[in-house]
Amino acid sequence: MVDKNTALNTGMQDGLKLEVAIVGAGISGIYSAYRLTTAGANSGAQVQVFDMNTRIAGRLESVRLPGLPTVQGELGGMRYLTSQKIVTTLIEEVFADQMEAVDFPMGDPATLFMYLRKDRCKQNAWTAAQANGDKLLTRYYLNDDDIGFSADQLFSKVIYDVLVADPWFMENFGEYVQKIDEYNYSVRLTLEQWDQVKPYLTYQFEGSPYDKRLVNDIGFWNLLKDQVSQEGYTFLSTGGGYYSNTINWNAAEAFPYMMGDFSASAIYKTIASGFDSTVYAMANEYMAYEGACIWTENKLLTFNKEHAESATHRYELVFLNLRSNQQWKVYANSLVLAMPRRSLELLDQDNFFFNINENTTLNNNIRSVIMEPAYKILMGFDTPWWNELGITAGHSITDLPMRQCYYFGTGQFSDHSMLLGSYGDMETESFWKALSDDPVKFRVRKTRLASLQEVEALNDVQASDMMVKEVVDELRELHGVGVPLPYVTWFKDWGDDPFGAGYHAWKAGYKVQNVMPYMRKPDQAENIHICGEAYSDQQGWVEGAFCEAEKMLESYFGLTRPSWLPASYYLGW
Amino acid sequence: MVDKNTALNTGMQDGLKLEVAIVGAGISGIYSAYRLTTAGANSGAQVQVFDMNTRIAGRLESVRLPGLPTVQGELGGMRYLTSQKIVTTLIEEVFADQMEAVDFPMGDPATLFMYLRKDRCKQNAWTAAQANGDKLLTRYYLNDDDIGFSADQLFSKVIYDVLVADPWFMENFGEYVQKIDEYNYSVRLTLEQWDQVKPYLTYQFEGSPYDKRLVNDIGFWNLLKDQVSQEGYTFLSTGGGYYSNTINWNAAEAFPYMMGDFSASAIYKTIASGFDSTVYAMANEYMAYEGACIWTENKLLTFNKEHAESATHRYELVFLNLRSNQQWKVYANSLVLAMPRRSLELLDQDNFFFNINENTTLNNNIRSVIMEPAYKILMGFDTPWWNELGITAGHSITDLPMRQCYYFGTGQFSDHSMLLGSYGDMETESFWKALSDDPVKFRVRKTRLASLQEVEALNDVQASDMMVKEVVDELRELHGVGVPLPYVTWFKDWGDDPFGAGYHAWKAGYKVQNVMPYMRKPDQAENIHICGEAYSDQQGWVEGAFCEAEKMLESYFGLTRPSWLPASYYLGW
Repeated sequence: MVDKNTALNTGMQDGLKLEVAIVGAGISGIYSAYRLTTAGANSGAQVQVFDMNTRIAGRLESVRLPGLPTVQGELGGMRYLTSQKIVTTLIEEVFADQMEAVDFPMGDPATLFMYLRKDRCKQNAWTAAQANGDKLLTRYYLNDDDIGFSADQLFSKVIYDVLVADPWFMENFGEYVQKIDEYNYSVRLTLEQWDQVKPYLTYQFEGSPYDKRLVNDIGFWNLLKDQVSQEGYTFLSTGGGYYSNTINWNAAEAFPYMMGDFSASAIYKTIASGFDSTVYAMANEYMAYEGACIWTENKLLTFNKEHAESATHRYELVFLNLRSNQQWKVYANSLVLAMPRRSLELLDQDNFFFNINENTTLNNNIRSVIMEPAYKILMGFDTPWWNELGITAGHSITDLPMRQCYYFGTGQFSDHSMLLGSYGDMETESFWKALSDDPVKFRVRKTRLASLQEVEALNDVQASDMMVKEVVDELRELHGVGVPLPYVTWFKDWGDDPFGAGYHAWKAGYKVQNVMPYMRKPDQAENIHICGEAYSDQQGWVEGAFCEAEKMLESYFGLTRPSWLPASYYLGW
Repeated sequence: MVDKNTALNTGMQDGLKLEVAIVGAGISGIYSAYRLTTAGANSGAQVQVFDMNTRIAGRLESVRLPGLPTVQGELGGMRYLTSQKIVTTLIEEVFADQMEAVDFPMGDPATLFMYLRKDRCKQNAWTAAQANGDKLLTRYYLNDDDIGFSADQLFSKVIYDVLVADPWFMENFGEYVQKIDEYNYSVRLTLEQWDQVKPYLTYQFEGSPYDKRLVNDIGFWNLLKDQVSQEGYTFLSTGGGYYSNTINWNAAEAFPYMMGDFSASAIYKTIASGFDSTVYAMANEYMAYEGACIWTENKLLTFNKEHAESATHRYELVFLNLRSNQQWKVYANSLVLAMPRRSLELLDQDNFFFNINENTTLNNNIRSVIMEPAYKILMGFDTPWWNELGITAGHSITDLPMRQCYYFGTGQFSDHSMLLGSYGDMETESFWKALSDDPVKFRVRKTRLASLQEVEALNDVQASDMMVKEVVDELRELHGVGVPLPYVTWFKDWGDDPFGAGYHAWKAGYKVQNVMPYMRKPDQAENIHICGEAYSDQQGWVEGAFCEAEKMLESYFGLTRPSWLPASYYLGW
């Protein structure tokens, strides 16, 4: 089992001198420290990590609810795809002795609900109807051509239709797309092939407002509405399940995101001891090097060039120690800002690097991604009440403001169980924000398996009372049955500073193939690097953070591909 | 006719000494200067106005499209209610010699469209069905009790139901509410009475997540969903026409906003020479005083207390002259920040006043309002194509992303005409943002009445080509007829700095009765005042800005009620 009690230094050491200062102890920051030391490029004393939080692992945070000792709760990222080689290899090979990869159960669509416009059906209702030669009618007024398609099928149809309408695409990649039957389309490009397609794919629909424009310059919502009408878009957005998909982000980036990576038959997996185990395993290996240090509760305020005659290092970093409220200085020759957009914006925007009035390229590129809100709420229940409905795992989907819920639990009737509500959605953000801001918190309750002391220890992370009751109200409507109140909750809003977002999405109109390499070294004259999920081409996935960090390390720190990662593995732009 | 060529000083005068420095030349700023001088409290030289923009009038901006010399276009606020005494009296009495009040035509509901979920009907379809004893069925799956109600009627029903469910309300104000018939409810409270109700009104619905909570602590979306289901909320939000109404703002504040002011039978009016005429008339009268000056293109960076022994004034203001990029200083004894939320946030947050890490009350209160996006697009057409559909004026409503459009024009067939698209909507903001950001602008075109030179002079304010074509696409779907391309457009995004929003809305959970007076003098030891629409109780209306400024002037500048305004007129909290 991975040890999550990684030693963290909450103190300060004014005048500390480093080769590489890594700011941000999330996935990309810890990975960078782990790689630089294990590759022998730097000693532990030469490369150190800083974070303003009390903990490491950034937007991975695995927790357990009292009374549910064997059920892992994930407040942040919760799974990976086996086609994602860095995360998969780290978990299943490099750190296999410390963690157990397990399937992330998606449940049986024949038991899971889809509740849209007050109409309740099972998630397999579309394919079941199709098997009988029928078209499932919903309460959405779809275009004639689109009736009977499930949301997933309709996404594939749209993408197929846009691809085949472009003669350039068909000439070069036509062999990878196929209409299988009336409802099913196949688009089998690898991520590397998608990178060849995305900058050039053109939208070719005469009479459309977007005719002859690069798909890269069109918003995904704009494109979907143009293809399937606003009603069709609403169906895709609500029925698709993953609401982050249908915000108005870069349509060219949305295409591979929607189709998945077909270079392998990918399946969802996670880690038995929690998805954040990966970060702790890397952190522990890094910490085994002499002099290694992870400074937490230390906030970077600004950084400047060292100009003094006596200067031995290129940059002076000013940290605020949050426990003592004292400032201290660190000197380093390279700086890795392993941070998402909002964290970058919270740094001193007037220093020589950001220099917000002058350096418009950097500042435009920092703002090239949309920050997507993500609330998560874990709820502990005395019993897995959903078992009575035949549900054991997976998620149900609705157009109610809660949008979706995941079921976790023991699978046994009399035991406690956990439900995850996840609201990663721009449209419903204000619905939940008014509730989550309310100061009256949910009152926890002891159970047969969870003591009062255990549940009260979580008082600080409870959702508001109104929020919990609203979620339970929506669970009742979604499932059509009575739903009891939970005994404990755990609420997390990733929109809070310093994260600012649960995940990120490229805006339309930015040339992502240029912005990604730019961010890894914005100023060719400076050894300052930005990496992480936000500016990756697998946004919302840990693999995006890993790939960006690996590319940065290979390009600018002289590292060669690690032995455990195939040289052929494509890291993206 | 009001002269809009008010003299503006784009220069600087380092060391300028004033009694009152007013920052912000919008409605509340110009009104303050006008009142302080005309009341004899200050000379023109003692009170001066500053703005970073090239023009005055803030979020009022009246423009004319080439070829449409008699049709007033409004990029910002466009009308007033005759129950709003300050704006009405200024226009219809004080400055009656300079401007002509005219009705703001709302058109005939029997001709105007409602297009929802691909279903097109006329706006009077609900009342027409009711007159026949029928219930109009829509494509929304409303609760049984709500079927047949128009959106406006359903809003009134919800508010009536919440009011009568509270015994305290019924005991004190029961006589003012009445169920008139099956579909119509009457709530006849004055704004002064609403102010007595709002802090105490309790939500009394057993089993609801919000039972026994103050309505003031509940979001309006949260409340509406609880009353009429999410489907009902969607009907209200899309069919109600004014989308700013149904964001998740403070429900207690939403109630009077929805019901209007019943102290008078209010009608919509505007000004023939443009709604911004009011501001210019006041500015001109102020400028007639010796020494008066409106400094434009001068941006306030920060302000500090004068501590020097030789100090003659309390505050030192640092301005950046935008033309010369030079800083200069102004000294004043009082400071009026006549600005909305975003403008306040753009000032130096570390000065003694904002002091963002220490002064949490001020900073919480600044953030007590939601910033509502507002895009506006004016489109000039060769002919009023909507006349063929029987439409002469008013607005049509849809759940397409454009949400609503207003018709303006000559009313004669062969002449040019103007259409206003107005997107004041949180949900569709990202749909339009991706389009408005596109660098390819709409290509203007000369017409029989507008020369190439005239239309090309507007190149800088054109919407993007994709945006215009998308709007035209939606106009076609909404009206069910062919719609030609316009020959010119005028695009304005009030979400851009320094405004940050088209208008504002109180958040749930804030005690508005305390925040409003607080903002007018946040620190009792300082002569610094914040006023304007953002922190008023008539948000989105110019009257809100007027009332806040008037209250501030009467409370802190010793001004008495002006002769033209009845002493009995209620100014709010």
